[in-house]
Amino acid sequence: MVGGGEGAYIGNIHRIAARLDNAWDLVAGAFDVDPQKGRAFALSQGIAEDRAYGDYTALIAGETLRQDRVDAVAICTPNFTHYPIAKALMEAGFDVICEKPLTATLEDAIALEELTRVSGRFVGVTYTYSGYPMVHEARVRVANGEIGKIRTVQVEYPLEWMATAIESQGNAQAAWRTDPTKNGRGGSIGDIGTHAYHLAGFVTGLKLDCLTADLATFVDGRALDDNAHVMMRYQGGARGLLWSSQVALGNSNGVRLRVFGETGSFQWFQEQPNELVYAPLDGRVQIIKRGAGDVSEDARQRSRTPPGHPEGYLEAFANLYAGFAEAIRARRENRAPGVLGQNLPMAHDGLKGVAFVEAVVDCAESETPIWITPVAI
Amino acid sequence: MVGGGEGAYIGNIHRIAARLDNAWDLVAGAFDVDPQKGRAFALSQGIAEDRAYGDYTALIAGETLRQDRVDAVAICTPNFTHYPIAKALMEAGFDVICEKPLTATLEDAIALEELTRVSGRFVGVTYTYSGYPMVHEARVRVANGEIGKIRTVQVEYPLEWMATAIESQGNAQAAWRTDPTKNGRGGSIGDIGTHAYHLAGFVTGLKLDCLTADLATFVDGRALDDNAHVMMRYQGGARGLLWSSQVALGNSNGVRLRVFGETGSFQWFQEQPNELVYAPLDGRVQIIKRGAGDVSEDARQRSRTPPGHPEGYLEAFANLYAGFAEAIRARRENRAPGVLGQNLPMAHDGLKGVAFVEAVVDCAESETPIWITPVAI
Amino acid sequence: MVGGGEGAYIGNIHRIAARLDNAWDLVAGAFDVDPQKGRAFALSQGIAEDRAYGDYTALIAGETLRQDRVDAVAICTPNFTHYPIAKALMEAGFDVICEKPLTATLEDAIALEELTRVSGRFVGVTYTYSGYPMVHEARVRVANGEIGKIRTVQVEYPLEWMATAIESQGNAQAAWRTDPTKNGRGGSIGDIGTHAYHLAGFVTGLKLDCLTADLATFVDGRALDDNAHVMMRYQGGARGLLWSSQVALGNSNGVRLRVFGETGSFQWFQEQPNELVYAPLDGRVQIIKRGAGDVSEDARQRSRTPPGHPEGYLEAFANLYAGFAEAIRARRENRAPGVLGQNLPMAHDGLKGVAFVEAVVDCAESETPIWITPVAI
Amino acid sequence: MVGGGEGAYIGNIHRIAARLDNAWDLVAGAFDVDPQKGRAFALSQGIAEDRAYGDYTALIAGETLRQDRVDAVAICTPNFTHYPIAKALMEAGFDVICEKPLTATLEDAIALEELTRVSGRFVGVTYTYSGYPMVHEARVRVANGEIGKIRTVQVEYPLEWMATAIESQGNAQAAWRTDPTKNGRGGSIGDIGTHAYHLAGFVTGLKLDCLTADLATFVDGRALDDNAHVMMRYQGGARGLLWSSQVALGNSNGVRLRVFGETGSFQWFQEQPNELVYAPLDGRVQIIKRGAGDVSEDARQRSRTPPGHPEGYLEAFANLYAGFAEAIRARRENRAPGVLGQNLPMAHDGLKGVAFVEAVVDCAESETPIWITPVAI
Repeated sequence: MVGGGEGAYIGNIHRIAARLDNAWDLVAGAFDVDPQKGRAFALSQGIAEDRAYGDYTALIAGETLRQDRVDAVAICTPNFTHYPIAKALMEAGFDVICEKPLTATLEDAIALEELTRVSGRFVGVTYTYSGYPMVHEARVRVANGEIGKIRTVQVEYPLEWMATAIESQGNAQAAWRTDPTKNGRGGSIGDIGTHAYHLAGFVTGLKLDCLTADLATFVDGRALDDNAHVMMRYQGGARGLLWSSQVALGNSNGVRLRVFGETGSFQWFQEQPNELVYAPLDGRVQIIKRGAGDVSEDARQRSRTPPGHPEGYLEAFANLYAGFAEAIRARRENRAPGVLGQNLPMAHDGLKGVAFVEAVVDCAESETPIWITPVAI
Repeated sequence: MVGGGEGAYIGNIHRIAARLDNAWDLVAGAFDVDPQKGRAFALSQGIAEDRAYGDYTALIAGETLRQDRVDAVAICTPNFTHYPIAKALMEAGFDVICEKPLTATLEDAIALEELTRVSGRFVGVTYTYSGYPMVHEARVRVANGEIGKIRTVQVEYPLEWMATAIESQGNAQAAWRTDPTKNGRGGSIGDIGTHAYHLAGFVTGLKLDCLTADLATFVDGRALDDNAHVMMRYQGGARGLLWSSQVALGNSNGVRLRVFGETGSFQWFQEQPNELVYAPLDGRVQIIKRGAGDVSEDARQRSRTPPGHPEGYLEAFANLYAGFAEAIRARRENRAPGVLGQNLPMAHDGLKGVAFVEAVVDCAESETPIWITPVAI
Repeated sequence: MVGGGEGAYIGNIHRIAARLDNAWDLVAGAFDVDPQKGRAFALSQGIAEDRAYGDYTALIAGETLRQDRVDAVAICTPNFTHYPIAKALMEAGFDVICEKPLTATLEDAIALEELTRVSGRFVGVTYTYSGYPMVHEARVRVANGEIGKIRTVQVEYPLEWMATAIESQGNAQAAWRTDPTKNGRGGSIGDIGTHAYHLAGFVTGLKLDCLTADLATFVDGRALDDNAHVMMRYQGGARGLLWSSQVALGNSNGVRLRVFGETGSFQWFQEQPNELVYAPLDGRVQIIKRGAGDVSEDARQRSRTPPGHPEGYLEAFANLYAGFAEAIRARRENRAPGVLGQNLPMAHDGLKGVAFVEAVVDCAESETPIWITPVAI
Repeated sequence: MVGGGEGAYIGNIHRIAARLDNAWDLVAGAFDVDPQKGRAFALSQGIAEDRAYGDYTALIAGETLRQDRVDAVAICTPNFTHYPIAKALMEAGFDVICEKPLTATLEDAIALEELTRVSGRFVGVTYTYSGYPMVHEARVRVANGEIGKIRTVQVEYPLEWMATAIESQGNAQAAWRTDPTKNGRGGSIGDIGTHAYHLAGFVTGLKLDCLTADLATFVDGRALDDNAHVMMRYQGGARGLLWSSQVALGNSNGVRLRVFGETGSFQWFQEQPNELVYAPLDGRVQIIKRGAGDVSEDARQRSRTPPGHPEGYLEAFANLYAGFAEAIRARRENRAPGVLGQNLPMAHDGLKGVAFVEAVVDCAESETPIWITPVAI
């Protein structure tokens, strides 16, 4: 792992997720910009002294020399460093698991995605919500035609924690998220809108045609948007509406997806992730439970307990890590990956997210609204 | 009553609503385009033979001559006839209760609203959702500053019943709603989007600045939109997102309003109308129940039973009728109306709805998206 | 109507319910123990002066002489007066609609029910919850065998409004409910436990075999139980658990019924009365909506609006009144009543409720718990 | 670990829980009654060959000789073997983590609990539901007097998976649960009723005075109860109602606790475990979210992610494992345990559960209902 040391929220989540299914061992790391602190943290995690590196170049150098070199490296550093670190790792032959957004700029994202294809290295991107079993259930059922041709998609990601100017009151998480040099051009749209956008595309399989958007900044002094409205047109005629907000009081982590087709609809809400609501034409709404008898193999393999035993965010994250492990193992063993190793968020998905943010911000900066097609869809 | 005879759904709703609180007696009517059927229906409703009129001109003529002439006339005819009927009634000195939309064209709406101001006649418009007690509760609390300055409004009205081409399978309700000559230029946006738009403005007190929109028609052969996405900018900087749909499977009558301010939010869902969800800054979500100890006088007077005894759509409709009665009585008695007679949907609200639909359709018909300000806001 | 005058909560509910569907006209009444106040109230309700009676004997005398005598009389007086008033009315040939409990004592209830059978008079009892359309839906589906043989029934009726000693703080409603001379021997079990008991029997069709119970009084100084636990054994082997409480903070009017059979279950919650939750063996929970395409005729005829337009407590009450009207009319016309006039709560149901309370209180007063069979089941 | 090998559901859950917070390493085990299969499974889990034992006596012998002997041993074997294994481990000086029920017989439970006190060994029992953070939140708030003196407790644990005779269709999990020689005298009451009973006592701090009960067996040919109703009287006057069922269709794992006090109530539902519903006297229901700003230290330390990121069953289980680790470490370091190491389910709680089942079954086997006080409360 690179980054994610002492006090880093997401680094800890990555470690729990990697550990949960026993799919990974954390054996090496460069956890901090301060080499000494990074090494101390590594030891606290039970990492051997000779694999507690001062920075990522040392990690690459050290691991390259070892027989038992690491299988992959997770990047949990600030957005603008993703590209150089991932590039160096891939050029040295390592597989990569990268936090989203893939990069801070579109240019970097295009280059990284290109490098993936050229190098053949594995680059998984942690779009967490695509790790949930009932999200896969929806995806499988949509692909099977259970709701017919899709007409409209309503997706939203409202949060409340940045409803006041906490970035100027010592909250580090909020500080970098509102700093354009660290976060890129998109505020809420970059931080969480990309999750919503990915989720909608992941479940529906639809490709965007074009979008128009309206960004707003409600907290005084904030440099980036904290509320975004996006109207989308998908190829083939479906329409979409996307809302992301960091100031929506009452919403802890309100990712919600609703997909309406010709013969049915699916609704999924992240705060009750073990249920998928299915409404067929006959008017009788059904609740499909994780683990129930008739769920798909895709959902079942991403599930550890029977229905009624809630699994949540960490398990979804662990499904991604288990999937990355299976995908990498399958490549080594020269076989097709099993269910877990399929339908993973990869570099191209990361690029699409960055391109989406660029298009939204371009649109919002235009004097009149315009329909824009992102450079990658 | 004019219109609303045998088999008319909404006419029956008006009659129940008028009766529920004993605020009105139905004593005269011209219920059908077929005079004979209309008179027969009148008799079936217990109306005296001499007040069972063949058409609205006969009703005006007959009632004008009576000492005990009707206090007001409810218009439940197709949209395009609202204007001439209302005009004739007002010119003859009658007060009017009119189904929404106020008229089928913007021109008619402007003229009717003008006539209201000139004539001093009362014209109530049945925007039903503004009759719900907890909608008033939200309105009062917003006005009291309980959630601070408003930032964003999410309002939606999804329906499912027109997800297939039932208009070509003998469903009369769907047939006129999809016929531009009877329904006007807006499909879902005119039929239900206007309810959502009114509700958002009613609770927030915000005035629209401008909007941009995307309309779609998903059912083959349908002449009007059946799905509408609208991005709104309110005066003062608040933003809004509105979705109306007639093809959203799983949604019976899913009117939902969410209002987010600087210090709190309100959420109301029409299918659970006795609750208002309030989320203040402190992170503890509260459920405010209709009839609970601390609700406003505005909500209390629109409530008949204690908390936990569900009141619904008919009671909301009855609240409008009770309000219209109080407003008319107060004017006669030359006094200010009580709580029930205030905050009623009136001709200007009807005009705003028609202007909103015009703006949305203009926007959707424009080649590039544009920000439009409706002619009445 | 006898009783239910100025300030009487339930009298007003009866009048709204009678009016809502235009099934009844209120034309005569003796509304108050104070004849003068009663007559004044009658006039305020638009009743003719000669039918504004001073007491129920005057009402009987007056109406008996009229050609257009009332069809039925609603009794909304305190419990202990139900019997003498109903008896006098029935002996004079009037049909009766009586508030529950049927009587204050078991002796009276037995006599009244006997009189019903002897006289052939109609005696409807307002067990309100059996007026809800989705309760009928559950009843019909159970009867059709959709959930197989019933195994266990969980029914509860928790309230919160008597959690403190409001009876000693001027609350008249609480005062008579906690006074054994006015309310009978049962506190919460008599006031609301009987509703729960009736509802369970109504939906399942099961007859009680025996019960054992535990009563408690939590508010200091209260003379009757305010919390009751009852274990029930039904004939045929099904078991039941009943909880009633007047001190259950957080519960406005929380009537909830869950019925579990061999092949499925139904769940209904009065505060969301438009939905019935059906769980078949296959593990996929379904939400059946009032007004949806596949509901029974029994539910449909008790419904006025499409799905998604909430109907509630007053509509359920109105369904009873519409049913009483249909039953009485059918008897006069010497025909079988239509759907609305069937499955109504009648005197025998009232007797069963009184017998249930007696059994529960006997059981609670026994030193050791005992299994008791009520005298009427 | 002893038991919990190939195909054992609960063994896998224990391992995930132990791993999730990095509090334990699994380094030794005797996983199967078949020594060869047990050793093979151990190797598959990455356990060194010399610590892959054939049975628990070999494990005790082997580990006793090691410097780096295991800190504690988890027992995941069938109920009737818990006692001899735990006894042998404790006598050899090992700490123990034991699946519930503590033992299959009351005699064994008394002996084991006695041994714990004598030996000073740590014996944690995995009453999973007491690991949930919002259960602790309720416990802390009740202890702080936030709802005043407790009046009534409603607790239930309905399941659906044994609604048919799956024990005779090859389902091993159902087979031993319905076999009195393996499961003890209680069916549903032993398997899940004990969880409900523990949860109620854990949150309220109440001690049982006495109980009376009614057991039923609904599936033909089943030897033990599959539905249990229990009325409870707590010391100090509070009352309780407990329902456990293995045949309640529609309930995946429906543990639900409702506690009503003089000034408020708490409600918690295991299938939405991140919320605690609090209803104070003022009538405004509040939803307290895991991770929100004002939750107790007890809840916070059992939480890994912010509000809105669902944590569930595995995290609750992990909280127990993290707590056992902290408690054992604290004892070694001769200090008071931190928050995580307090309020853990221990041998005495296990004994109480076994005594509860005995009392319920005794009561049900009595010809007339009786009030029984369990031997341990």
